[in-house]
Amino acid sequence: MITKNSEITPKADGRHVKLAGFVQHYRDLGGLAFIKLRDSTGIAQLVLKKGITPDSEFKKMEEIPRESVIIATGTVRKSKQAGAEVIVEEIINMNPAKTPLAIEFMGKVETDLSKRLDYRWLDLRNPKNLLVFSVSNTIEQSFRQFMLEKGFMEIHTPKLMASPSESGAELFEVTYFKKKAYLAQSPQFYKQMAIASGFERVFEFGQVYRAEESRTVKHTTEFLSFDMEKAWVESEEELMKLEEEIIVNAVNAVEKAHSEKIKELLGREIKTPKTPFPRIKVKEAVEKVAPHLLEADEFSELDSEGEKKLGEYIKQKHDQDFVFLTHFPYAVRPFYHMKREEDPTLTKSYDLLYKGMEITTGAQREHRPDVLRKQAKEKGLTEKGLGKYLEFFEYGCPPHGGWGFGVARFVMQLLGLPNVREANLVPRDPDRLLP
Amino acid sequence: MITKNSEITPKADGRHVKLAGFVQHYRDLGGLAFIKLRDSTGIAQLVLKKGITPDSEFKKMEEIPRESVIIATGTVRKSKQAGAEVIVEEIINMNPAKTPLAIEFMGKVETDLSKRLDYRWLDLRNPKNLLVFSVSNTIEQSFRQFMLEKGFMEIHTPKLMASPSESGAELFEVTYFKKKAYLAQSPQFYKQMAIASGFERVFEFGQVYRAEESRTVKHTTEFLSFDMEKAWVESEEELMKLEEEIIVNAVNAVEKAHSEKIKELLGREIKTPKTPFPRIKVKEAVEKVAPHLLEADEFSELDSEGEKKLGEYIKQKHDQDFVFLTHFPYAVRPFYHMKREEDPTLTKSYDLLYKGMEITTGAQREHRPDVLRKQAKEKGLTEKGLGKYLEFFEYGCPPHGGWGFGVARFVMQLLGLPNVREANLVPRDPDRLLP
Repeated sequence: MITKNSEITPKADGRHVKLAGFVQHYRDLGGLAFIKLRDSTGIAQLVLKKGITPDSEFKKMEEIPRESVIIATGTVRKSKQAGAEVIVEEIINMNPAKTPLAIEFMGKVETDLSKRLDYRWLDLRNPKNLLVFSVSNTIEQSFRQFMLEKGFMEIHTPKLMASPSESGAELFEVTYFKKKAYLAQSPQFYKQMAIASGFERVFEFGQVYRAEESRTVKHTTEFLSFDMEKAWVESEEELMKLEEEIIVNAVNAVEKAHSEKIKELLGREIKTPKTPFPRIKVKEAVEKVAPHLLEADEFSELDSEGEKKLGEYIKQKHDQDFVFLTHFPYAVRPFYHMKREEDPTLTKSYDLLYKGMEITTGAQREHRPDVLRKQAKEKGLTEKGLGKYLEFFEYGCPPHGGWGFGVARFVMQLLGLPNVREANLVPRDPDRLLP
Repeated sequence: MITKNSEITPKADGRHVKLAGFVQHYRDLGGLAFIKLRDSTGIAQLVLKKGITPDSEFKKMEEIPRESVIIATGTVRKSKQAGAEVIVEEIINMNPAKTPLAIEFMGKVETDLSKRLDYRWLDLRNPKNLLVFSVSNTIEQSFRQFMLEKGFMEIHTPKLMASPSESGAELFEVTYFKKKAYLAQSPQFYKQMAIASGFERVFEFGQVYRAEESRTVKHTTEFLSFDMEKAWVESEEELMKLEEEIIVNAVNAVEKAHSEKIKELLGREIKTPKTPFPRIKVKEAVEKVAPHLLEADEFSELDSEGEKKLGEYIKQKHDQDFVFLTHFPYAVRPFYHMKREEDPTLTKSYDLLYKGMEITTGAQREHRPDVLRKQAKEKGLTEKGLGKYLEFFEYGCPPHGGWGFGVARFVMQLLGLPNVREANLVPRDPDRLLP
């Protein structure tokens, strides 16, 4: 039975323990030596002491390189400096590390991200990274629990499609026996299908794919999308309210579980956002922060630069990190977004920006097959290109709406990470398929 | 605010309600008409009654085909036959169904599965199918909760890989910009990577891909795999114990949440399995149920037929639905399974069979880079073909093990479904990319 490093506290004084982990540091002062042993719960100080620890174990440690995996047995002792430490009786060299390490992942000078990602399995040993994915896990479970409590069912939809899910651009092509298939850009079609099937409330955490040659800090070619779809919504406002609630809930969960570690390792405070989040119409936002776009194109939406500026503007004006952009022009939205009754050039859709970055697109969907067919045509899509999608709505389908939510972007913004790749365990981009 | 059909009980007598759903059945007796309205919670009986219900609503219903989506308002009334019903005041035709329906999905004569899958969005309206996915959801959440409580972290690993994850056969090829990529057959490499990174306990629910031209009732080309990996395991026995526990837990959860509906709609009893599950060595199993395989090949394992027979044998001998097959020959296992110390022709691996069908493969992994490299070579794999995999273990990696678990197969066997496609929301096979 292995004891966790987190259990090495003054309370455990006198306990005989077996610890296991990575040798983060070893220092031999002659007759007295110290190991910093790292496991997933933190660092334990191990002490080799002449007279108690056999000489053989000192010798063993001389041969064991940094970051090797060891098991150590010994007795816990209260200590002034470390709180508690373990006086070592035996060391087992379980798996030695090659020297030198391919990268320094905890050094004072930070290794370049691309190099770090080349050796992601070492990079992830940095406790900062373990923290990022612990936070990410807390957020995912909090989202999920919230949805389950609201009566939503988790589903899994196919990522292999006979036809493009949205536009046709930015698609990865798969050789599917003697045919072609495409990787889904979103579960859009299938979560709507579930609504047409009477499932009423569904959500999915799944990988989605974008064959975009974007080399930015916020794009990857494969990422985790948190998607939901709900029958009987009356407007997109209902979705925005639900999203506010689920975000506040998740940030609270992160605060409760990780705020100390986040402060210690990332130097950040986690604060619960106030609700309601401000709402601003796209046109108004463009006028406010990017009036030049208005001249260029009457159907404008914000570009990345504009989103950033809007984030700053909202921060200044409302002291808020989140803002809903609403009333998107139909011209810049997909065919399945519902047009507004009072102005059919606009849609019942929204984006949620977090610190100036889009993390969600949501909308009430067009569920009437005749209108939907017309809108598909307007956007230049062919029936064949849409597979069976249009047929989903022909046998009765309730009004519905939903969102797609980029989990890694949310984590990135919450923790102030400089690149979304930092919030992807093993990121994929146009230049990266390894490790 | 929409009321659920499940709330239409004698208790609600006198309540004014708004219901929404699909028109499953309509019968007009002249001055008195009945609608069976279906939502995700069940069927409500709506009554149109001359004198209370306006004549206009009778006329409306004449025009509304079966399976159309309507909203109905009215007042709940206790009723002898139905328990409670709703006397209708108004009907809103939300979205009419095309006639005739493309398939009959609740008729007395069952529609052929392939046809049903062609129109999966209608087929899923059968309450039996909603139940299958409710059960599937309960199982997934029960597995997940169990893992989280044991300190495991949920991760998401890439499905796009530069190199085959296991063998090189049965791989889907993706055009990845100017390169080739492959769809992951399992998260094997990356969950092991997480262990080398010090994550210690990880699990994943994710799609996996097999480009197998198998046209059987138990194969699909894309399916949900529940994978886990745990550091510091001492043998595969530890994994088997954990798996017994998690399965009992999940079956209990299904029993609690769904046993009544399962009895009503599928005519089955859910019974908690006894533990421990029997364990039998592969060699012994082959001798018992398929001795002819021994003659053919000294490294034999069971084929599908043999697995079925073993299931029957175990049922008869131990009254058990589950059996662990252990001590698999190295010859039939992947290179990363650990060989047994006492007999290196055998591995520290197992399969779990459920009613004669494999649902899990598990093993302690080889974590020593020199041994692993040797085993890869023995199996004819090249270093290049393995991407960075072998490097994961070069900088110290704890001993570890884990399993892959086919969720849909488990659901199939638990509910006695004749085909694994029934437990896949939108299945994919060599002949099916639609809907």
